[in-house]
Amino acid sequence: MTGALLACDWGTTNLRAWVLDEAGAVVRTRDFELGVSRLQPGEAQKRFHDDVRPALGAETMPAILCGMIGSNLGWRIAPYAPCPASRADLAAGMIRVDELAHIVPGLICRTTWGASDVMRGEETQILGWLAEAPARSEGRRLVCLPGTHSKWAVVEDGRILRFQTAMTGELFSVLRRHSVLRSPGEPDDPQSFDEGLAAAGDGSSLAARLFSARARVVGDGKPADTTPSYLSGLLIGAEIASTLDVLGAKDGPVALVGDPALCHWYSRALTAHHLKHTVHDGADLAVRGLHSLSKLENRHAPG
Amino acid sequence: MTGALLACDWGTTNLRAWVLDEAGAVVRTRDFELGVSRLQPGEAQKRFHDDVRPALGAETMPAILCGMIGSNLGWRIAPYAPCPASRADLAAGMIRVDELAHIVPGLICRTTWGASDVMRGEETQILGWLAEAPARSEGRRLVCLPGTHSKWAVVEDGRILRFQTAMTGELFSVLRRHSVLRSPGEPDDPQSFDEGLAAAGDGSSLAARLFSARARVVGDGKPADTTPSYLSGLLIGAEIASTLDVLGAKDGPVALVGDPALCHWYSRALTAHHLKHTVHDGADLAVRGLHSLSKLENRHAPG
Repeated sequence: MTGALLACDWGTTNLRAWVLDEAGAVVRTRDFELGVSRLQPGEAQKRFHDDVRPALGAETMPAILCGMIGSNLGWRIAPYAPCPASRADLAAGMIRVDELAHIVPGLICRTTWGASDVMRGEETQILGWLAEAPARSEGRRLVCLPGTHSKWAVVEDGRILRFQTAMTGELFSVLRRHSVLRSPGEPDDPQSFDEGLAAAGDGSSLAARLFSARARVVGDGKPADTTPSYLSGLLIGAEIASTLDVLGAKDGPVALVGDPALCHWYSRALTAHHLKHTVHDGADLAVRGLHSLSKLENRHAPG
Repeated sequence: MTGALLACDWGTTNLRAWVLDEAGAVVRTRDFELGVSRLQPGEAQKRFHDDVRPALGAETMPAILCGMIGSNLGWRIAPYAPCPASRADLAAGMIRVDELAHIVPGLICRTTWGASDVMRGEETQILGWLAEAPARSEGRRLVCLPGTHSKWAVVEDGRILRFQTAMTGELFSVLRRHSVLRSPGEPDDPQSFDEGLAAAGDGSSLAARLFSARARVVGDGKPADTTPSYLSGLLIGAEIASTLDVLGAKDGPVALVGDPALCHWYSRALTAHHLKHTVHDGADLAVRGLHSLSKLENRHAPG
């Protein structure tokens, strides 16, 4: 079968693989329930060769992999590249795991308050976003990648300068399932979402603001099935308010990169904050980022 | 058997009952695994009469109950009393659930950002703290009751003026058990606790600071079994920094009321913030508060 590159976004819960042609267009794609959290130690290489490559007719194709596959739970550790980092820095940091496969490194940086922060996978989506339009490599840009661990990255002249992670998606998930805030209903009610957004204020005192999700039900008589929407608005609102402040980027615009359904709610929240923004599909940009790295990799670090 | 009052702190997971003499001294005490979360609907009255009263030889004694027993999960709803509230206001708000038993109401107030906040049970401990020394009913005082849902109350001239809840204990519990931060080890390492305290900063950007508990392990190589201690320090530090700010009480002193083991860590955190504080056993103060209400109840609202 045809194809020039096997591109993989191999995360914690899932693996998505694409075969690309020389120009980077997707020839075929496939998802596997093979996230690194489901792998036995040492199993990644075998699954890649026995399951992933044959399923895509890509037995002998060069491959580039990004995401948690480069962590201690994955195939082999691809050490974090330090920020600031350009596409060339990330390409130079790729590790070769067999004759035809490379893993993209994650990134590490210092937060403004001196702690470490890390990402694995999102750096490749940011590269894809940069590769999509040359103008994005000029000046200072702000990219938000919402998710379990939302990433906010400051990009300057095409380099990832620094970033900050907020555990928004994970807080939502554990509070909704395991805390006193657990309740029926889905996070699909715009009005309660907006109420949560307003309650987020400037994002300070989060542990206290969270309790308002309980008090509005037992104290104010709001329906319990609106709690997930309220909680979602509160957490996303707090993330936006406190992150923009810390990153020194209060004016936007913000490039939202991720799952379209989740980006919908972030878009609503950014609009409430009067912040201009654009929305981009994260999977599309992962493909583009992996393809752009393959070009550099072929040129600078032949296998 | 002797005794003048059956006093009960009937919470979500446990029920603690004391028989007091006329002066309020504890004659006997007993714990029951009968928290309201374990009761069938409508079961509270039967358990109280069939199990609690006989076990303490208190079949015909006047009884006062505080805590979640006054919620929709308990015996009957004792409507929240509004802040500001004095001991007399709380006594007047007690509801009579049978010939010899009363339930203390909880409290409701507005946070500084306009949301509702509620408590049930802690108001009685605050009354106990006030009853313990007349001087505490003079001027402005700050009381912190750490726990699953930590309460910070501003008390002025013996009245509970307003309060604020932080979900610190619950965040700790769900993140430690169900999130990417789950890890072996107990929250017993002072050095990692202090590291978390420092990382809490001014308490802003909590969802981002929380991720540092992950990044310090995967990025900086800190031992995973220090994560619970770090997480505890981070959450308690963020609670203190942001609550003092919101309550307008940056100088303390703070009266810590609660479980002695937990108060130990809050005391360490308050010391790091250079805040003077005193430590008081929460169970002792619940007894004292219930006794002080019985005196008012007998005088103003005879059964």
